[in-house]
Amino acid sequence: MGTPELTVDCKRNPSPIERFGARYLLKAAKNPPVTLILSNGEAIGGAGVAPVVRLRLRRRDAVFRLLLDPVVCFGDLYSREELEVEGDLTRFLEHMYRLGVDRGFGLLPTLRAIFQRLRVDNEVLTRHYDLGNDFYRLWLDRAMQYSCAYYSTPGSDLDQAQTAKMDHICRKLRLAPGERVIEAGCGWGGLAVHMARRYGVRVIAYNISSRQLRFAHRQAARLGLSDQVEFVQDDYRNIRGECDALVSVGMLEHVGKERYSTLGGVIDRCLTDRGRGLIHSIGRVKPAATNIWINKRIFQGVHAPSLQEVMAILEPWSFAVLDIENLRPHYVKTLEAWLQRFEAIQDRIVADHGPQFFRAWRLYLCGSLAAFRVGDLQLYQVLFSRPQCDRFPLTRGSVYTDFQT
Amino acid sequence: MGTPELTVDCKRNPSPIERFGARYLLKAAKNPPVTLILSNGEAIGGAGVAPVVRLRLRRRDAVFRLLLDPVVCFGDLYSREELEVEGDLTRFLEHMYRLGVDRGFGLLPTLRAIFQRLRVDNEVLTRHYDLGNDFYRLWLDRAMQYSCAYYSTPGSDLDQAQTAKMDHICRKLRLAPGERVIEAGCGWGGLAVHMARRYGVRVIAYNISSRQLRFAHRQAARLGLSDQVEFVQDDYRNIRGECDALVSVGMLEHVGKERYSTLGGVIDRCLTDRGRGLIHSIGRVKPAATNIWINKRIFQGVHAPSLQEVMAILEPWSFAVLDIENLRPHYVKTLEAWLQRFEAIQDRIVADHGPQFFRAWRLYLCGSLAAFRVGDLQLYQVLFSRPQCDRFPLTRGSVYTDFQT
Repeated sequence: MGTPELTVDCKRNPSPIERFGARYLLKAAKNPPVTLILSNGEAIGGAGVAPVVRLRLRRRDAVFRLLLDPVVCFGDLYSREELEVEGDLTRFLEHMYRLGVDRGFGLLPTLRAIFQRLRVDNEVLTRHYDLGNDFYRLWLDRAMQYSCAYYSTPGSDLDQAQTAKMDHICRKLRLAPGERVIEAGCGWGGLAVHMARRYGVRVIAYNISSRQLRFAHRQAARLGLSDQVEFVQDDYRNIRGECDALVSVGMLEHVGKERYSTLGGVIDRCLTDRGRGLIHSIGRVKPAATNIWINKRIFQGVHAPSLQEVMAILEPWSFAVLDIENLRPHYVKTLEAWLQRFEAIQDRIVADHGPQFFRAWRLYLCGSLAAFRVGDLQLYQVLFSRPQCDRFPLTRGSVYTDFQT
Repeated sequence: MGTPELTVDCKRNPSPIERFGARYLLKAAKNPPVTLILSNGEAIGGAGVAPVVRLRLRRRDAVFRLLLDPVVCFGDLYSREELEVEGDLTRFLEHMYRLGVDRGFGLLPTLRAIFQRLRVDNEVLTRHYDLGNDFYRLWLDRAMQYSCAYYSTPGSDLDQAQTAKMDHICRKLRLAPGERVIEAGCGWGGLAVHMARRYGVRVIAYNISSRQLRFAHRQAARLGLSDQVEFVQDDYRNIRGECDALVSVGMLEHVGKERYSTLGGVIDRCLTDRGRGLIHSIGRVKPAATNIWINKRIFQGVHAPSLQEVMAILEPWSFAVLDIENLRPHYVKTLEAWLQRFEAIQDRIVADHGPQFFRAWRLYLCGSLAAFRVGDLQLYQVLFSRPQCDRFPLTRGSVYTDFQT
């Protein structure tokens, strides 16, 4: 990518106020190991510490934008090539997350925190998932799993780890042939098809994205599973019917936390007395808002809940948690794999969606990787049942030992 | 046990009001499968359903006492042989718990719910644990574990299952030789000694009961572990020092929930950056008060928290939950074993502590068994660390496979 024209207006010396602003910005950001290169090439900061990256600003007002709304403007400046990160973007973001800078300062974030009410808007959501099956097919695994994989053996590649993830979920749920499974938020149908094919269950899978569902439908038909897997284009709130197991992978992030009890009610309505449920979701160690740039530009309305928040789904309906597993290190590996694949097809994505889209998505993937690495994000698998369920063996050993599909 | 004298005054016909009261009692208790035998031998209720038990009342005012404060008076009447349960006591209690009768009605419970503030009183606690080491030795396992065992293999006896429990905890924590472990609430020191002996760690174990600590001290000395295990008579709030692992088994039940964040702060103060913690506690699927009779007569100030409540320990201090396992079915088996052993030594306990003590404890054990069977109580093992801990392998498989001590 060439240097865009707007660097032309950066030849002059920075005004004293730009220099002062840059110094204040670094201080407000808790003096990260960063050198700021102002629009005229002057370097600010990074003294005393070995800088992890150099941030080259290509607009004279970049400093002021970053002061006003650091997280959103960083993302936007980076996407538009008006800010360049010279060095390891992910490592830089890890430093910023460790410092807590992603929610710390700036005028607009403060105002936003006071006034903002985030809404989950199905239209916005479908926009993300309807980016095009071809786009996701370029860098996801074969089963099109847009969620954390499970690296059950050290040398697994992404395809193996995503298959292992699906098996891990099925084994935790102890699916038996002929059982009825409801999937809430089925993406491209990879898990629904896998459950039907490998575990002999009947699946009804819900999703609101028509593009994803068309893909899922074709996959099921191709494998002769159309009788066993039904795909329904609808919201989780409209799930009906009775099931032996309910599974939801990567949907909770899109359910506003004010609707957690509603989600619990849907599960309660569907699950038999001996039924089991599993929710797989990104989460946090304590409640916190989503990175505001991600929320604005990539994935509107997402929320990664703490476990205390997750319990608001289950406790009102007296579900017993049987098992919670934290797969955070697996999301680090998953994101490393995605990022590698994504960067390898840069030319194709730039050609299809433009350079700004590529850079925004690269920042989103690097930022997510950084957040999982430093523990800002976690990944919870929550297995639950009615309070006196006797469907499970005494130990979890069989999940790890006597596996056959 | 002979019929006590007070049946003498029960020969008259019941007054209409006693009969009316008995009918009202059964109705208020949601018509359980029970026949009430009034003081004159007249049977009330149980029509239409096969009664699970006959409750024989041996005082004329028993009906009114049960109406006033059903749970406390049932326990007290039963303990004093003024009420006899003819049939399976545990099965009867299971029915009552399923009906939710243990918190449903009665005048006093309602008033109590309004006015009561439960306090955790160390004096009351030590009274329970200081009942005498000899008493507990009669029916607990060899390692004196007064908490849920772990039946890792189907044929395990209580001793094996308690050893397996200790190993399960140590393996989850991945204890390595030379590490420093703090135990909060160590009982008779069984786990502290086991960790030192089998895993080569150095343990500082806290407890407030002097009798238990004397026992623990002797055990450690007998095994030549006095250099490796230090027992401290103090409250968890006074725990000091740094450790690689912190473990607490069966203590959380005695920490008032208003002090959960304080407990979290103690853990935060002690645990290194790579440290791990494990809390093993009775819990519930949703917040609820402790059975009031148990709270008054057996175990004052106990509280079995829901997971949402448990998270109040960890979230304020940004601990990441790595693993939660629900061992409810194991507590059913543990209590069955305790009850069997306890009943087998009835004569000895009656001789040492009197018949009322025996009956009260039998009711406590049967009631706990019933509560775990119907899912009114659960058992959570919560493993946690700092948010980005990298001390653990990618899967939990090694907990189940490559075990050696």
